[in-house]
Amino acid sequence: METLAVIKIGGNIIDDEAKLAAFLDVFATVRGKKILVHGGGKLATKMADGLGIRQQLVDGRRITDAETLKIVTMVYAGFINKNIVAQLQARGCNAMGLTGADGNALLAHKRIHPSIDYGYVGDVDAVNTAFLTRLLEGENTLVFAPITHDGKGQLLNTNADTIAQEIARGLSSSFATSLVYSFEKSGVLLNAEDESSVIGRINPADYQELKQRQVIFAGMIPKLDNAFTALRSGVAKVIIGRAEELSQLLAGQSGTTIVNE
Amino acid sequence: METLAVIKIGGNIIDDEAKLAAFLDVFATVRGKKILVHGGGKLATKMADGLGIRQQLVDGRRITDAETLKIVTMVYAGFINKNIVAQLQARGCNAMGLTGADGNALLAHKRIHPSIDYGYVGDVDAVNTAFLTRLLEGENTLVFAPITHDGKGQLLNTNADTIAQEIARGLSSSFATSLVYSFEKSGVLLNAEDESSVIGRINPADYQELKQRQVIFAGMIPKLDNAFTALRSGVAKVIIGRAEELSQLLAGQSGTTIVNE
Repeated sequence: METLAVIKIGGNIIDDEAKLAAFLDVFATVRGKKILVHGGGKLATKMADGLGIRQQLVDGRRITDAETLKIVTMVYAGFINKNIVAQLQARGCNAMGLTGADGNALLAHKRIHPSIDYGYVGDVDAVNTAFLTRLLEGENTLVFAPITHDGKGQLLNTNADTIAQEIARGLSSSFATSLVYSFEKSGVLLNAEDESSVIGRINPADYQELKQRQVIFAGMIPKLDNAFTALRSGVAKVIIGRAEELSQLLAGQSGTTIVNE
Repeated sequence: METLAVIKIGGNIIDDEAKLAAFLDVFATVRGKKILVHGGGKLATKMADGLGIRQQLVDGRRITDAETLKIVTMVYAGFINKNIVAQLQARGCNAMGLTGADGNALLAHKRIHPSIDYGYVGDVDAVNTAFLTRLLEGENTLVFAPITHDGKGQLLNTNADTIAQEIARGLSSSFATSLVYSFEKSGVLLNAEDESSVIGRINPADYQELKQRQVIFAGMIPKLDNAFTALRSGVAKVIIGRAEELSQLLAGQSGTTIVNE
């Protein structure tokens, strides 16, 4: 099977022009099929502030009212996505940008929660693997903005980590798929203050223990939940680590590798 | 040869939710391959005003400084493009949105002008017809935002009428291609004040005469120049008329048809 790398980059890379450029230099040279999933960064918040739109966060998640959806659609699917695509094209990487609405790539539903109204936030129901496979076979590198749709005309703001996981799972029967969560840290750390304390390997038993000991907490939990979900559905490998070390992450020389056993 | 309709919609349709919905109802049912090219509308100006960015116009063309390029990329490629795609998906039309950077669809260069610095405005050099044909053959309807790139990482603001013309020309050797400029008027009018004075057919000799008599002037001139350029390069038919009458325009029952002889 041909290899496929699904690589998520965090907001802090998006916010830093030099870091993003260095990341794209490496990403452009990754061999095999590849998909980049990007989050938002601070630009959406800055735009909203500039326009006098108040942002609400509940448990670290943005509440997406109609005005906020407009902003994130503009910033994520417009500004960030198209700039990344143009910069990859400049590096000889034939990128194309997508949201979940394009070609019905990612069908989602508006989140229903017993107590919190998240607004226009979507949870993914289906990945259009035939469409994505066709684009990948046409030698295109795909760049996903974290926006989906409900098939009834409504765009939805969707967590980029989850999108990366869903795409990796969906394509894992056609490609030998690796999922990489790249961000500002060296990996899953034994001591949050010490960047050299990277845990090289985590299996489900380790994960339970590390959670119980509160070594793993907060934002790392949904990331690892996504990682194990992906592994259980056929993704070959999940790696978490520093965006600046992308080639080492893919070569297994850096970061934390999440394994089934 | 299979038919292809390349349809440009004007900004006034984009600005009016009900008119846009009615247009998309009809567009979704157009038979054969189809490509929609949309302009901007007033949202970009509104956004720029909201953020305190001053807009400059020279001869009706927006001067695209770095901040304005950011705005139009967000509004055109983000908000407008993705909303149209989602609304077409809801109508059972498998749309996908593109800029010229995506898949290197439209390569352009920054406009060089002896006296006016238009800023980040692009003139199209090449259409990636192999890429577009592959997407069309994959049963996708394409929706283009008027943004291109220079292949060196720079996005460029590009006239939507010209994009429609370039795409129609590029694909006219593979498809029996019609180019439709749909907007707020019934067609090319003999009397600008009288919507019933539509000129049914215009050939190059008529065009010269109508220009000389100043029946055709201002914004209509670049539209007709685009139309004749398209016809000379193999586009089968160019039609100009009211967006609300899209089916009649395609059936030759409404609007102005531009012909070679």
